[in-house]
Amino acid sequence: MTSELKLIGIGAGNPEWVTVAAARAIGELDVLFVVIKEKDLDEFVEVRRQIVSEHRSTPLRTVELHDPPRPWRSTPDYPAAVRTWRAQRLQQWSDAVASELGEGQVGGFLVWGDPSLYESTLAIVKELVAVCSRDIRIQVIPGISSVLALAAAHQIPLNRQGRAVVIEPARLLASGMPEGTDDVVAMLDGHQTFAHIDPTGLDIYWGAYLGTGDEILISGDLESVREEILRVRAEAAHRKGWIFDTYLLRRR
Amino acid sequence: MTSELKLIGIGAGNPEWVTVAAARAIGELDVLFVVIKEKDLDEFVEVRRQIVSEHRSTPLRTVELHDPPRPWRSTPDYPAAVRTWRAQRLQQWSDAVASELGEGQVGGFLVWGDPSLYESTLAIVKELVAVCSRDIRIQVIPGISSVLALAAAHQIPLNRQGRAVVIEPARLLASGMPEGTDDVVAMLDGHQTFAHIDPTGLDIYWGAYLGTGDEILISGDLESVREEILRVRAEAAHRKGWIFDTYLLRRR
Repeated sequence: MTSELKLIGIGAGNPEWVTVAAARAIGELDVLFVVIKEKDLDEFVEVRRQIVSEHRSTPLRTVELHDPPRPWRSTPDYPAAVRTWRAQRLQQWSDAVASELGEGQVGGFLVWGDPSLYESTLAIVKELVAVCSRDIRIQVIPGISSVLALAAAHQIPLNRQGRAVVIEPARLLASGMPEGTDDVVAMLDGHQTFAHIDPTGLDIYWGAYLGTGDEILISGDLESVREEILRVRAEAAHRKGWIFDTYLLRRR
Repeated sequence: MTSELKLIGIGAGNPEWVTVAAARAIGELDVLFVVIKEKDLDEFVEVRRQIVSEHRSTPLRTVELHDPPRPWRSTPDYPAAVRTWRAQRLQQWSDAVASELGEGQVGGFLVWGDPSLYESTLAIVKELVAVCSRDIRIQVIPGISSVLALAAAHQIPLNRQGRAVVIEPARLLASGMPEGTDDVVAMLDGHQTFAHIDPTGLDIYWGAYLGTGDEILISGDLESVREEILRVRAEAAHRKGWIFDTYLLRRR
């Protein structure tokens, strides 16, 4: 009997961004695989717990996957260290699925935001299924990405009429806006790249803790507001101990 | 008393892609504004009706907005004709909201997919509120975009690790993939642009009627599968009388 693994997009912060499809999938799971990262935040664990209990009438068996610690960039032969780390992670996940997902059972992973955008769970699960000796079907349930949450919070369209919008890691923004592009959403910005690029002619729509009670929004001429964003961001990160933010840069 | 207009993203086809937040908003509306386009499809009207009845315990007062017919591109002085058409549409919507949305009431618009991607409702509502003499608050509720639905159906990430993804109208694709970009989602393709560009080194992930019982998915080397997509697409459009499709082009 074919087993199944569901990747369930649960949205980017607000428990009410769970879809009916995601809620139904949570309700039908036999087992939930929860990926525990090195520095997992209590707040995230609590929101996941809340979402599960909201959409289950029966308790859900949970299996924790403890990801091995990711190597530091300063590790000698960093690429090899990353390959080893990936292989260990895959082995860990594979062992857990092999022993905890019964024949014909349905297992699930809850994925923040949407499983298709800057998210590694799907790639690992596909690898795991490819090397698995059993027959496992995959289902992906889309979720509200932080990109859409950002636009909704600012009440703006992501694209201008007839134009493109680019979503990219902030690292690619370091040398400025991509050629020929007027709208860029930056993801995974650990270095406040927006504050280091030429602000001429750019507006920013910045958001942190989107969809939560702590949501902060700042928008305006990048040159005028970037210092404010840096200050507010640093204060919030200090106060809460973590921050998740994203932003759109828009050429005027 | 402040009134409110909610733009409610209801997802891109599957009624189960409605979020808890959207369902709650539908349940709390005093009035729903339904935009009737020239060639509105019975199937779309039926899915909207189904979503509303699913998430309401009481009947919902509905006001129809009949958009004026959009001018043909062959109209003499087309830009002026479009400006007139936009002004008429804005007037129509403004009149309806002025007369049908009471003080302190909550009105709503259901938006297919997500209100921020290649969708004009938000822009019109913001214009309407800006010129309105009354105090109206706007709320935007994000939804599952067809872009995310496409990736979920094909079980693929939209981006490659550390790389950008571009979302753009197919018209911009006519001259080929944008410089320096390996992943492009094409929207609003009325001319099967994928079949007219150089396919060398490109894979396509194509989907039609995403999230519905009629969903069709085709993927592979663009050169090998483009004829099949054209054939399947034409057959489906003929059979159903309409088609909505989108695709990702990915450089290998």
